Amino acid sequence: MATVKLWTDAEVAADLRVATVFADIRTTRKSDFVNNFWRALANQPEVLERTWSSVKAIMIAPGELDPLTKELIYIAVSTINSCSYCVHSHTAAARAKGMTDQQHSELLAVIGMASTTNALATALQIPVDPEFSVG
Amino acid sequence: MATVKLWTDAEVAADLRVATVFADIRTTRKSDFVNNFWRALANQPEVLERTWSSVKAIMIAPGELDPLTKELIYIAVSTINSCSYCVHSHTAAARAKGMTDQQHSELLAVIGMASTTNALATALQIPVDPEFSVG
Amino acid sequence: MATVKLWTDAEVAADLRVATVFADIRTTRKSDFVNNFWRALANQPEVLERTWSSVKAIMIAPGELDPLTKELIYIAVSTINSCSYCVHSHTAAARAKGMTDQQHSELLAVIGMASTTNALATALQIPVDPEFSVG
Amino acid sequence: MATVKLWTDAEVAADLRVATVFADIRTTRKSDFVNNFWRALANQPEVLERTWSSVKAIMIAPGELDPLTKELIYIAVSTINSCSYCVHSHTAAARAKGMTDQQHSELLAVIGMASTTNALATALQIPVDPEFSVG
Amino acid sequence: MATVKLWTDAEVAADLRVATVFADIRTTRKSDFVNNFWRALANQPEVLERTWSSVKAIMIAPGELDPLTKELIYIAVSTINSCSYCVHSHTAAARAKGMTDQQHSELLAVIGMASTTNALATALQIPVDPEFSVG
Amino acid sequence: MATVKLWTDAEVAADLRVATVFADIRTTRKSDFVNNFWRALANQPEVLERTWSSVKAIMIAPGELDPLTKELIYIAVSTINSCSYCVHSHTAAARAKGMTDQQHSELLAVIGMASTTNALATALQIPVDPEFSVG
Repeated sequence: MATVKLWTDAEVAADLRVATVFADIRTTRKSDFVNNFWRALANQPEVLERTWSSVKAIMIAPGELDPLTKELIYIAVSTINSCSYCVHSHTAAARAKGMTDQQHSELLAVIGMASTTNALATALQIPVDPEFSVG
Repeated sequence: MATVKLWTDAEVAADLRVATVFADIRTTRKSDFVNNFWRALANQPEVLERTWSSVKAIMIAPGELDPLTKELIYIAVSTINSCSYCVHSHTAAARAKGMTDQQHSELLAVIGMASTTNALATALQIPVDPEFSVG
Repeated sequence: MATVKLWTDAEVAADLRVATVFADIRTTRKSDFVNNFWRALANQPEVLERTWSSVKAIMIAPGELDPLTKELIYIAVSTINSCSYCVHSHTAAARAKGMTDQQHSELLAVIGMASTTNALATALQIPVDPEFSVG
Repeated sequence: MATVKLWTDAEVAADLRVATVFADIRTTRKSDFVNNFWRALANQPEVLERTWSSVKAIMIAPGELDPLTKELIYIAVSTINSCSYCVHSHTAAARAKGMTDQQHSELLAVIGMASTTNALATALQIPVDPEFSVG
Repeated sequence: MATVKLWTDAEVAADLRVATVFADIRTTRKSDFVNNFWRALANQPEVLERTWSSVKAIMIAPGELDPLTKELIYIAVSTINSCSYCVHSHTAAARAKGMTDQQHSELLAVIGMASTTNALATALQIPVDPEFSVG
Repeated sequence: MATVKLWTDAEVAADLRVATVFADIRTTRKSDFVNNFWRALANQPEVLERTWSSVKAIMIAPGELDPLTKELIYIAVSTINSCSYCVHSHTAAARAKGMTDQQHSELLAVIGMASTTNALATALQIPVDPEFSVG
């Protein structure tokens, strides 16, 4: 169960501000399906608008990182933040964008490897090498 | 300061087990520079061997994810785990593998975006849509 | 399912040490309802006593931060720690103490915003400005 | 050291897009001081613009949560995310907005308390009470 | 639901690489029961092999830390990483290796205590005492 | 730098409440050295008293887990919470209680291993086996 109500399509339709965002989600994604994340955010219209606007600009607008790479990064962040919902939604999104089983396997290997070396570097409090300096 | 001693090249040379790993790091990476992470792990030879063996298999051996993509994922994991050393070393590694400023900027945008939506999904305890099911 | 048994009222009544804490919870909160958190901690009487004593001193005794503000901070911590149970129990507690939908929305916005800037500051390893110094 | 260059005022002045954001930061905050966070984000103009726009809307525009309460929540999130820079900058910001030593002390107590109960609830995998349900 | 298929014994039997690992798990643990973790990893044979090989070397081979102590540490890490599955599986493993209720209680107390002091030390950004230096 | 002042011995001596706790720390630990953690907490006398009281009860009073095991668990929690100060202070404490280099090495191996399997289990959202059920 959520800590807020999940809005039905009828409830969305009755609220112009929320309905406008949902219409843009459907148009942009070329799909009638709107997942629970947005149905929960509908309770907070400012957060809904700002979040969708950022997702559109960052995840959907073209850039130098291809859409699948962005989803792989999203899965990595969501895994370390232990966000169950986000792991599910972005693994599904990555598959929809062409992630193969082998790519999924390599993604998991990198996430697991990084988790280990992160823990080791923190437990050992290793000082940063001057060679990594930018300036 | 580290919680363990960082091994100098002379100390490494005097320990066959550690020296063997260091030689393989230098050969594999085609560089004489060995960063502090490995100089700290030298205190734990089993951990040193296992970690280098995994890094070699996962990060260096060819796969379906290209080396730069793996580094971007590594930076994402290291950031969320708040590992200062790892953020530095893997940002340097990503640049060495060709990461442009624009790619770095997009990576930061995705990490930041995912962090927000992770927090929102967790705070709202959103139930997973059945549409994301695998089976 | 929990990793320990959840104590029923009958089991609580049969254990003087646990029963004493439960009686104080009911009296202090002016409610007969005791949530699962305490029913699980009943398996560890020392932890139960110490935790309830701290909750009473920190969350219930009057201070300079009002009770609702403390609950908002609690939700923020629980969200970032990805504690599903705690997000639920403290969102319910905040509502019981008067949190409005608009306040909840602003809380979510601040948690989301902070999560992004935390990730950016960590990914960029930004040095602390001397202007923030205390001494 | 940062993983990117920190922009000086001269470098900012030479880039119209960055200069525009910096001017708005100075005007909005009624202060000439611009902290390192923004000088690092100057390398990523899109991230700079989006982040400042969100900070302005969420942290500075008036709402139902007062500015100090938002800073306390920000400190809580930054602490759990282990963001050293953010803990420093937002503790300074909270003090500038009137946080007393006693309020700081109570904030720390709540963050510490929540961290313990979060860990206990997760270690015990306590099921959510139906009484906390929204619907 | 998982983000990947959980392999049945029949599916395992039909894949030589996966079947070999499962056979070794059963032999090493002297039990026919193979838990879902390995049934999920079966989708990524390289990850399956590397993970089982590490678990065998680290958790099962004799060392200076006894098997129960290793499980207590594993529960602590899994709790802070908020890994629901791992908390369950390693609490069960610790019980199978003789963890008493009193030991479980003390483990929870230490995890809770450390979580509080971690948060306090981070919120206060306490500088490391030179007395803790190694060199 | 800390976000609060670190109290000197002279400042401690001038405040009866803080001086009482410091005297008990020195007596209990049979050492005149009081580390920065307590000198920072001196600014929040309630937090100082409560924290010291808990540390004394949990870490110092005899129990079923020996003092070194508790320190190993503390290091594990502090590592995953990325608390630099705590990793330093509790690694020093573990060494003072007899932790050998080999034990440190095995501790690091377990923390690293658990970090990997935590990430894998979360990324795969593996359902808990009914065999792990308590009831």
